[in-house]
Parts: sequence; structure tokens; C-alpha cells
Amino acid sequence: MRRLLPLLAAPLLLAQAPPPEAPPVYNAADSIIANAPAGHWIDIAPDDIMVMETAAGTMAIQLAPLFAPAHVAAIKTLVRTGQFDDGRIVRVQDNYVVQWTARPDPAKPKAAPLPPEYERPIAGLSFTPSPYKDTYAEAGWVSGWQAARDPATGTAWLAHCYATVGVGRDNPPDTGDSTELYTVIGHGPRHLDRNIANVGRVLAGIEPHAALPRGTEELGFYKDEAGRVKIKRVRLASQIPGFPKWQMMDTASPSFAAVVQARANRTGFFPRPAGAADLCTLRVPVRALK
Amino acid sequence: MRRLLPLLAAPLLLAQAPPPEAPPVYNAADSIIANAPAGHWIDIAPDDIMVMETAAGTMAIQLAPLFAPAHVAAIKTLVRTGQFDDGRIVRVQDNYVVQWTARPDPAKPKAAPLPPEYERPIAGLSFTPSPYKDTYAEAGWVSGWQAARDPATGTAWLAHCYATVGVGRDNPPDTGDSTELYTVIGHGPRHLDRNIANVGRVLAGIEPHAALPRGTEELGFYKDEAGRVKIKRVRLASQIPGFPKWQMMDTASPSFAAVVQARANRTGFFPRPAGAADLCTLRVPVRALK
Repeated sequence: MRRLLPLLAAPLLLAQAPPPEAPPVYNAADSIIANAPAGHWIDIAPDDIMVMETAAGTMAIQLAPLFAPAHVAAIKTLVRTGQFDDGRIVRVQDNYVVQWTARPDPAKPKAAPLPPEYERPIAGLSFTPSPYKDTYAEAGWVSGWQAARDPATGTAWLAHCYATVGVGRDNPPDTGDSTELYTVIGHGPRHLDRNIANVGRVLAGIEPHAALPRGTEELGFYKDEAGRVKIKRVRLASQIPGFPKWQMMDTASPSFAAVVQARANRTGFFPRPAGAADLCTLRVPVRALK
Repeated sequence: MRRLLPLLAAPLLLAQAPPPEAPPVYNAADSIIANAPAGHWIDIAPDDIMVMETAAGTMAIQLAPLFAPAHVAAIKTLVRTGQFDDGRIVRVQDNYVVQWTARPDPAKPKAAPLPPEYERPIAGLSFTPSPYKDTYAEAGWVSGWQAARDPATGTAWLAHCYATVGVGRDNPPDTGDSTELYTVIGHGPRHLDRNIANVGRVLAGIEPHAALPRGTEELGFYKDEAGRVKIKRVRLASQIPGFPKWQMMDTASPSFAAVVQARANRTGFFPRPAGAADLCTLRVPVRALK
């Protein structure tokens, strides 16, 4: 007997355009996503996708120039100049982060500090508020991203959730030079919001990296070179011929509103639907077109 | 250069009584925990700890008879009669659960259905409310457990957070016969609250299990026997000579209130403390005494 637990949003991250033989539909949200009209999806620019091949697998990361333009520009330069090739995953801390670093370059002078892109003005953004309470701020979505805002300061920021990518740093006012990145592999550490430059999210391939052995040292660092995981090559999708076109659901669309509603009011397995859902479980559907 | 991110609560799960050479203190919460007086800790009964040895490592699970007495009694019987020995981890779904099952026993008739211990009356419980907003309900703690309550129905329940242990089931009104258990290895799926019998939490040893390869089949099930992870032996701590004594912090104590306050208002690395923290990040400190 195979006892089942219902799907969490995780598989949405890899949702595909409906194949000829559609997989079984587990809940209304999956069906809404599968049937969302083309106009409810937004193309992701291939230049905003960083494709990282490691010894564990390949991870596609969508960068967020809307929120961290200087850091994203720095990351793209590092990618284009091959600085992440032969880098290393240096840290895996359970229920927290997988962290990796570019290849050290002793010849290179320390990069000029980047601006602290921890938040940005709300002005110019289209913010779709979540209908549900949030512990930390006003939660919602901005152009396909899980975000939050503070009307008092007039700012918005990317929320720290599972698969969020941020820039490792030492203490303020250092904001990190983008050579050290991490992704979240545990409960969304929202207390990092507005304390770190969030630069994107993993679109695909987080699984084998989330399953890497946890580091044995303080904060989950690997003890030595033997334990570290090699980064073989990092490119932008725009540099890879034939890389699939990716899309994210338009979070201002009726389809996304319906997904949110469905996820907060699950049926079938659930005798008592929650009637709410927290921001980090309300992931934005993304898909690769065939 | 080793860029650091601050610790999340995860290491607290394994917090030890302060050793002769105390480890570096990263934040006020660690210091509060290390200095909490003996009276702010509650002994965990050795009969309420299930010790599961698998091919990946050993996991100690604290059972919660306060919330699911019938399921916990059923689990203890399965443990005492060796039904989990030679069981299997059958499913690992990224950002969701690790699930395992007792050894199938075709000779055994299907167990009588257990009551749906999805929630219980608040009466008789000491509920310490969280000072912070919760998306799903009124959040807080009951005698060392992350919990939530609904004054309208007069009920309380264990919250689904990282390391929570629950009973896998098919559809209602089946509540599971306790031969199939899981633990959460992703963002707290609070939408499962009041839909599943939560029976406990992992005290120690979740890390190597959270790092198991994700299953390739639907819902993260392993494809076949070759991929499943063997459970070697499961015992109660009360059956293991010399097993350490475990304690959890009294969540009604001033020390715990101070931990909550410190976690919501982090300093040092954090230029902008959140001023709040969600229930699943406010884990209850536990420790093994030497």
C-alpha cells in the first residue's frame, strides 16, 4: 500500500507546458497552471538565466535585475569571464543554504563595493498583494517574484524563500562582491529579508544540490577541498544554443490569483483547507517550453 | 575569504549543555540557551523517544502523546514488536518530506482505524502565544512544542514545521495505521495542519536523511527496492542502556521568551532586524545532557 501525501508547490517549479499525455491532476492549482492562457505567462530573458553545471547536476537560476541591478550585472560579468568555472560549492547547512564561490583569483584586486541592494523603491513596480496575513511585512508579488513591501518606507524587496538566491557577505557595510552566492534549502529565512542582496531564484535543478552532504564544520562549511563540490562550468542561457525558452506566470494575471486561491483552499486530501497560505508556499509557476 | 551567513535555528536542535570550552556565541539566543537555568528545561521521557537506525544514520524522534495518544501508542507497539526493523525509507520529495514504512506483514490483519488526532481540546493545555502574526492561526507553544490554536473551536494542534513527524495516510476518514511515517525537510507545510496526525519531531540526526537522494517517481517515491534506504533497527530510548537524557526548553519559561525575542530581533550581521519571526523558525531548544 502506497500512502500518499499531497504535493506541495515544489513540482510547480518544474512545471512544463502540458505534454500530449497530461499527468494526473492532483489539485485545482495544477489544472489552473496547465490551462493558463499564453497571455498569462511572461518570457524570461535568456540573458537573465545563469546555468551552473556542477558535479552534482545542473542548476538554472533566474536573475532579478529588477531588484539588484548592480549585483546582477557583476554576476553576469563573472559568468561571462569564466570566473565561476572551476569554482566550488563550499557549504551546505541543513535547513538553511547551499553556498558556492567563484574560482579565487589572487591577481585580481578586490572589487569595488556594490550598493546595498537590500530593497528598492516601490515606485515603478506593480505589486500584487497576497490576500493573507504575513508575519514579517506586507507580502505579495512583483512581476513574477515573491516579494514584500513596507509602505512606510516606500520600499519593496525579494523575499527569502526556498530556492531564493542571494549574495554571501561579511558584515555591513560590505554587501558582497557577488563571487559568493547561496540558495535556500530550508524553511524560508525571512529574517534575512532586507539584510542581504537577493539576486534571483533557482528555476530548475535544485534537488541534487539540496541533497548534498551537509558540511561538518561550523555553519555547514565543508572541511577541506576533498569534500567540496566542483563547479564545472557556468554560462548564461543566452550563451547556450538551443537552451529552452522559460516562462514565469504573470503574478498580476487572473490565472495566478486562481492558483493562490486554490493553494489556500485545497480539496481532496484535505478535510480542513487552511483558508490561507504563506508567501513562501505560494511559489510562482515557471515552465520550460518544448 | 570565508563569507558567512548567520546561523538559523537549526543547530539548536542539537544544542548541548555548555561544554568546558564553549563554542563561539553567534547571537544572543545561543547565549540565552547556554545560560538558561536548569529549572527552565523539561526532561523528555526516554519512553517518548524513538531511535531509528538507518543506512544513512541514526535519527532520534520525540513522540507527542499529549497531542496524538492513540497514534503514539500504536507507534510504540510497532517499535516494541520490531515492526520497523528492516523497514524502508520509501520516499524523499524535495522541499517536502522523507517518508518511511514498517516492514510489511502480510499475515497481520489491517489494524483498526485510529481516531483522527488532527487536533485536540485546548482544555488542559498551557498555551504560550507567539507575540507575532501568523498566516494560518494563532501560533504559539504548548509544553515545549510548536503549536497553534483556534479559540472558536476550542482546539489546539501541533504545527507542521521542519523536522515535524506525522503519520502518512490515504484519504479521509482513514487516518493511517502508524506504519508509515514522515518528517518534513522543507518549508513548513502548515496547510497540512489539522489534516494529518502529527506525532512528534526529530530531535537529532535529520541531516543525513534530509540529504538523501530525491526519489525519481511521482511524489518523490523511490523507483524500486534498490533505491530504498534500509531501516536497520528502531527502539525506544528507554530500551537503550546509557542513552543520553534529553531535555527541551520550557516554552512557558522566561528563557524561552527571551530566545523568541532575540530571534525576532537579531543583531550583529543584521542591519535591519525583522522585529518578528514566524512559528517554524522559532524552534524549541532541545539538548542531550552528557
